[in-house]
Amino acid sequence: MNKLGITIGDVAGVGPEIIVGGWSEIMRLPNAAAAVYGHPEVLRRAVQLLHKNIEVVETETPFELEPSQHRIPCIRCCDDNVLQVPPAATDKRSGEAAYRAIIRAITDAKNKRIDAVVTAPIHKEALNLAGHLYPGHTEIFAEQCGIDNFAMMLYLAAGDNISGKNGLAVVHVTLHTAMKTIFDIITIENVLAKIKLADNFMRKIMKADDSGQRNLLSPSIGVCSLNPHSGEGGLFGNEEIEIIRPAVECALKEGLQVKGPQPADTIMLDARDGKFDAVVAMFHDQGHIALKLLGMHRAVNITLGLPIIRTSVAHGTAFDKSWKGIAETGSLIEACRVAAKMI
Amino acid sequence: MNKLGITIGDVAGVGPEIIVGGWSEIMRLPNAAAAVYGHPEVLRRAVQLLHKNIEVVETETPFELEPSQHRIPCIRCCDDNVLQVPPAATDKRSGEAAYRAIIRAITDAKNKRIDAVVTAPIHKEALNLAGHLYPGHTEIFAEQCGIDNFAMMLYLAAGDNISGKNGLAVVHVTLHTAMKTIFDIITIENVLAKIKLADNFMRKIMKADDSGQRNLLSPSIGVCSLNPHSGEGGLFGNEEIEIIRPAVECALKEGLQVKGPQPADTIMLDARDGKFDAVVAMFHDQGHIALKLLGMHRAVNITLGLPIIRTSVAHGTAFDKSWKGIAETGSLIEACRVAAKMI
Repeated sequence: MNKLGITIGDVAGVGPEIIVGGWSEIMRLPNAAAAVYGHPEVLRRAVQLLHKNIEVVETETPFELEPSQHRIPCIRCCDDNVLQVPPAATDKRSGEAAYRAIIRAITDAKNKRIDAVVTAPIHKEALNLAGHLYPGHTEIFAEQCGIDNFAMMLYLAAGDNISGKNGLAVVHVTLHTAMKTIFDIITIENVLAKIKLADNFMRKIMKADDSGQRNLLSPSIGVCSLNPHSGEGGLFGNEEIEIIRPAVECALKEGLQVKGPQPADTIMLDARDGKFDAVVAMFHDQGHIALKLLGMHRAVNITLGLPIIRTSVAHGTAFDKSWKGIAETGSLIEACRVAAKMI
Repeated sequence: MNKLGITIGDVAGVGPEIIVGGWSEIMRLPNAAAAVYGHPEVLRRAVQLLHKNIEVVETETPFELEPSQHRIPCIRCCDDNVLQVPPAATDKRSGEAAYRAIIRAITDAKNKRIDAVVTAPIHKEALNLAGHLYPGHTEIFAEQCGIDNFAMMLYLAAGDNISGKNGLAVVHVTLHTAMKTIFDIITIENVLAKIKLADNFMRKIMKADDSGQRNLLSPSIGVCSLNPHSGEGGLFGNEEIEIIRPAVECALKEGLQVKGPQPADTIMLDARDGKFDAVVAMFHDQGHIALKLLGMHRAVNITLGLPIIRTSVAHGTAFDKSWKGIAETGSLIEACRVAAKMI
């Protein structure tokens, strides 16, 4: 049984209700069990809100109690101050509670008490108000694991708009950084590293989907250009010629199945149509605009390059929808499914 | 009757066959008539390829002969050298022929012999081989009209993925330029100018759709951020605070209905769902990734800020599909429909 630790996220956002709302589907995932890191009373409020027949049981260590469709084991990671945070408020108490849940889950993952961490959305301002100055989850995980070379990947399983049977993964060479600074980060070395991370991740997914049979095919990877029209032969920039193409050639020499650089607006159409299993994007918007249009509610966010497995919903705290009982649970369920596959 | 002049584009590409293939639908557009700028023999080959019952008649000046579903008037703009260019070849003879057709159509538009120019795709390399060093159509039109402040707009009519009844227009603050150079172009003045162009264009479209009644509503315009997460309050860049927000505030003071800066990945979802009539994008990929995913085959390219009306297909020469009788005609038909509305 693969043990998933789900962190509650910011309690003023949709985290608690997507965990409770998606719980029975998460319990039906093959070979997966889950426990929640947060505060049991917050989960109970979500149970009430959604009129679910689920008991939330406080537990000291994960999987000391067996989870079931009607029982959520919850590890209390913070004090009762968090219970005073109203819905949709940016509050340092919920920022602190979210942070503690993440740290506790990472510790348990490092100590092999759980096999993967699945995170509900946090609110960065609340996190910062609590004194934790990170742009997001990913950087907390990287720091706690002492890792420099990590990457955020977005993944959409096959179905809906995604024709490829392996789904579509998008990894970013640069991410949470000012656009002015991306040019220093887009290097041959970094592009190549992301190509390899994408290849490695899709091999795992394809192997898991192959029901244990050895999958002999390489994932097909498309690499985006940085400039419009791939720089039009140097007319609109040289990064394609000087950086991205050399990185693609290195990857080809290593036997990977890579194409590019190709303009981002056409690569995303090809990816949708199943021509690529993974796309390497040069910056945030290239990947996010496409994936959000193709299936925001199902998208999963995965941190690659960590010694532990971490997946996440791809959406934010959605304060405009929180504690109204209307939040979409699809992304969290997919995040749990992908985490279980990666284990 | 609104007189459209359609330029043939690069004859090695899909231009001739989309004109012939879309001709009968173009002739059915309300109050529209069309003539083609190119070479009649090339059009006749496309008629043969598509087994159409259409006669191509050479004419000296546009609309000297009346067009019909079975008759394409064609103004010969080049010599017979172009007839030797094979399909899908990058050839200076087709580059030259494409250029001459454009210049002739622009001249006729300036002299009011036609009311709008609708362009089929050209191949930039072929154009450059012929000695015409332009990144695209737009720059030729701007130069010929002596205009500096122009903008390329992409437009998708309502339907398919676009919920808003007025369709969706996307205008770019920067376009065919290296990503490294966009920071000098994204100024308060330029962002404000594009907001106004978008507002102005959508007013025309909304008025035309309103069947002549005065449309009292302002178009709703969303302005994209440059940086991920709108710069996260300055953490990932200051352009939102220093440039884009002040431009939006200027537009609000002038009474326009503008929102932003908003992260590009969420603005495109809102735009698809009908929350915006127009979006101002900061660079090429923000607009193009979204619009191509939302409806590449129907997208129309419009040059704003010119003294003449110019629309175009949003796709390229598609050498992989040209002269096979499989090219999509939707974008050209939409380009003609929008041009007729703008007149």
